[in-house]
Amino acid sequence: MADALKYAINERARFKSELFDFLRIPSVSAKSEHDADTRRAANWLAENLLRSGLKVEVLETPKHPVVLGEWRGAGKDAPTVLIYGHYDVQPAEPLDEWSSPPFEPEVRDGKVFARGSADDKGQIFMHVKALESALADDGTLPVNIVFLAEGEEEIGSPSLVPFVEKHKQRLAADVVVISDSAMFDEGLPSLLFSLRGLAYFELRARTAKTDLHSGAYGGAVPNPATALAQIIASFHNKDGRITIDGFYDDVVAWDEKTRAQIRSLPFDEEDFRKGVGATALNGEKGWSVLERLWIRPTCEVNGFLAGYTGEGAKTVLPAKAMAKVSFRLVPDQRPEKVRKLLEAHLKKVTPPGVEVELLEHHGGLPWKTEVGGKYLEAASVALEEAFGTKPVLQGEGGSIPIVVEFERILHAPALMVGFALPGANMHAPDEWFPMENFEKGIGALLRLYNELGKR
Amino acid sequence: MADALKYAINERARFKSELFDFLRIPSVSAKSEHDADTRRAANWLAENLLRSGLKVEVLETPKHPVVLGEWRGAGKDAPTVLIYGHYDVQPAEPLDEWSSPPFEPEVRDGKVFARGSADDKGQIFMHVKALESALADDGTLPVNIVFLAEGEEEIGSPSLVPFVEKHKQRLAADVVVISDSAMFDEGLPSLLFSLRGLAYFELRARTAKTDLHSGAYGGAVPNPATALAQIIASFHNKDGRITIDGFYDDVVAWDEKTRAQIRSLPFDEEDFRKGVGATALNGEKGWSVLERLWIRPTCEVNGFLAGYTGEGAKTVLPAKAMAKVSFRLVPDQRPEKVRKLLEAHLKKVTPPGVEVELLEHHGGLPWKTEVGGKYLEAASVALEEAFGTKPVLQGEGGSIPIVVEFERILHAPALMVGFALPGANMHAPDEWFPMENFEKGIGALLRLYNELGKR
Repeated sequence: MADALKYAINERARFKSELFDFLRIPSVSAKSEHDADTRRAANWLAENLLRSGLKVEVLETPKHPVVLGEWRGAGKDAPTVLIYGHYDVQPAEPLDEWSSPPFEPEVRDGKVFARGSADDKGQIFMHVKALESALADDGTLPVNIVFLAEGEEEIGSPSLVPFVEKHKQRLAADVVVISDSAMFDEGLPSLLFSLRGLAYFELRARTAKTDLHSGAYGGAVPNPATALAQIIASFHNKDGRITIDGFYDDVVAWDEKTRAQIRSLPFDEEDFRKGVGATALNGEKGWSVLERLWIRPTCEVNGFLAGYTGEGAKTVLPAKAMAKVSFRLVPDQRPEKVRKLLEAHLKKVTPPGVEVELLEHHGGLPWKTEVGGKYLEAASVALEEAFGTKPVLQGEGGSIPIVVEFERILHAPALMVGFALPGANMHAPDEWFPMENFEKGIGALLRLYNELGKR
Repeated sequence: MADALKYAINERARFKSELFDFLRIPSVSAKSEHDADTRRAANWLAENLLRSGLKVEVLETPKHPVVLGEWRGAGKDAPTVLIYGHYDVQPAEPLDEWSSPPFEPEVRDGKVFARGSADDKGQIFMHVKALESALADDGTLPVNIVFLAEGEEEIGSPSLVPFVEKHKQRLAADVVVISDSAMFDEGLPSLLFSLRGLAYFELRARTAKTDLHSGAYGGAVPNPATALAQIIASFHNKDGRITIDGFYDDVVAWDEKTRAQIRSLPFDEEDFRKGVGATALNGEKGWSVLERLWIRPTCEVNGFLAGYTGEGAKTVLPAKAMAKVSFRLVPDQRPEKVRKLLEAHLKKVTPPGVEVELLEHHGGLPWKTEVGGKYLEAASVALEEAFGTKPVLQGEGGSIPIVVEFERILHAPALMVGFALPGANMHAPDEWFPMENFEKGIGALLRLYNELGKR
């Protein structure tokens, strides 16, 4: 263990150089033009993992392959840890808002800026390097390892559940470890007690059979952009509540213990506001910012396109308009029920003369865990040793739908140990990851495998 | 006169071929990448006009040049007719919705399909060919001619008013003839009694300093796309009335004679609905479709852009959103007042945490004329002779802001004689113009010059 930690420190320059090579591959799973790059990232990761001492396979799925690594040297009586992450990344657009090219990692102020540095290539790669350090040391670990990295997380993991179902014997584990989230603050590690789910839709409004002159036809022919704006405006009331009938019916009444835990965290709403750069925050009345982010559902417009959006003016009455609208869900909401409620709402609010088609992109269930238990305890010890401070428990507003599926199929609880920092620009321009956490985090993971071996 | 009409018939194949050459030049004034093409169209028109027998100059403006032609052979006592039109065209986008390329004219079912065929290259070119026919015949006309074609009509004619002010002696005329509109129906010519004005804006909403992850930040940080949708939704009430305070204050109470004239027209709202292909029409309660199109103001979204609009899903909380919003105005509304009212409205409805910047693209005053008078009478005789039926009086929903300016600066009334047909797809894909009207219209214009010479 001590030797493994030393190894990781000695090799850190090479680890960093390898990380940069990994980040240079534009593995954007959503865009078919990057399919070859996404596969290249899978192969690169597999080769690197193989050199770490694991048995590795690249397994095909209908779309992007899964990288599967195994090390079972701890024996049948030792616990098995399933490490899960993803090697695909979000699209990098808008490119002109990046300070340095998204696929050319650059370190500024101790942060590496690159698409995927935080979400999730940087974090999954820390596991690879922790495993290499452990196995290079005395060639052994106190736990068996199954390493699973997919290439479809950013498009809703369509192939992963069938994959896990199919390979459930081989993937059998006592605990699933996932590093795809952020610490609570700089120097303050955290463990997650919840994740929000997701239901992502596209609304396509149509009116006339073709674009029309806004002078010759305006005033008598429905405008699909206006209609879609009215529909979107109908989703919230003045208190920031979502007005879709039945939307809150399945939201759990969060226990006072959880809300007290959230209130106990060192968080300043005004600092948060300044950090995002808005002149004011908003959200659902009656809940704090952290509650709005973690334990309350949302409805957000992720994209809107209609008519002429180029330079200057065009007096067009568009014939169609499109909006991408997604809902973050909390326990026990389900995407398929939200779809039904949304369909009923659209029937109610869509103006005459406008046809709205509802497409579903992807969804995922929300997750929450009970505070306490031996795995959280093991992680707590490991994080405290690595960062010199006890981790806090926090929620997470984002979605990792596979967490619920692992629990359902493998009956293995999930341990969410993330090393990014708030403001990491995941899914946004200038995504970054702190190099200090890259190094400390490898140490924390080594300690975590060790602690899990004791339980 | 009879010889001139014969000349036009004999030369029609060449006229058509020249028209197609003119339409092939992509003179898109709004796009700087087409600046050279726009100039090429001006030069092409000037050369053609010169061959028709006019003295011609291409005069510079700050942006696109003006083509000015003169023929003053009728003498000082004869009336002077100012013919106004434009050689620039709207952008052709969306290109994939054209059945044939926008700048490669193609005749199908007796219609020539091309950007600018109706608006306005096809129609201004009919004047050129009518003038050529008259002057080729006996070398004379009963009226003096000033021919003015600008290249900035589709971007709001920023240079034209200064140009007319500067050259007002040279442009002095008794009547202004404009062919940039449509007949009421196939075989049924019309003369305009009104035009709507325009106030065109761009709204730019901003919230955070950068795009954010919709999971990590959604629910607590304002969404500019949602906010802009709410703002747009606030522009109309359920009766289709515009809710901006004071918006209707300056709208004239239309006289019963005008409304009766509109009601007398052969117009079927259900046929109109089928023509545009919408499942229902909409608009301001209490007014007929033609009234909504001609004598009532509107507020339309011409474009909307926010967030991710590409393939698939991106869970982004955008930091900015943009909408192009324009108002059609009726007498006596003024664009600058509408801007002030809109600013006040935005202050009232913009949610906290959202900053909205208001940009103005272009505007123009609405126009109306009194029914009756000698010029309308002259045009009525000319149209009836050419088309075999008496023209009707109608309004027009589109805007030709220069009409009001000609009346103000030159004290010359405008005569709006258009030859396109309803459904011509002006400003839309598959713009077309009927070849029959191209030929009959040249005859009508020859007769019009002749009739105006008698008044």
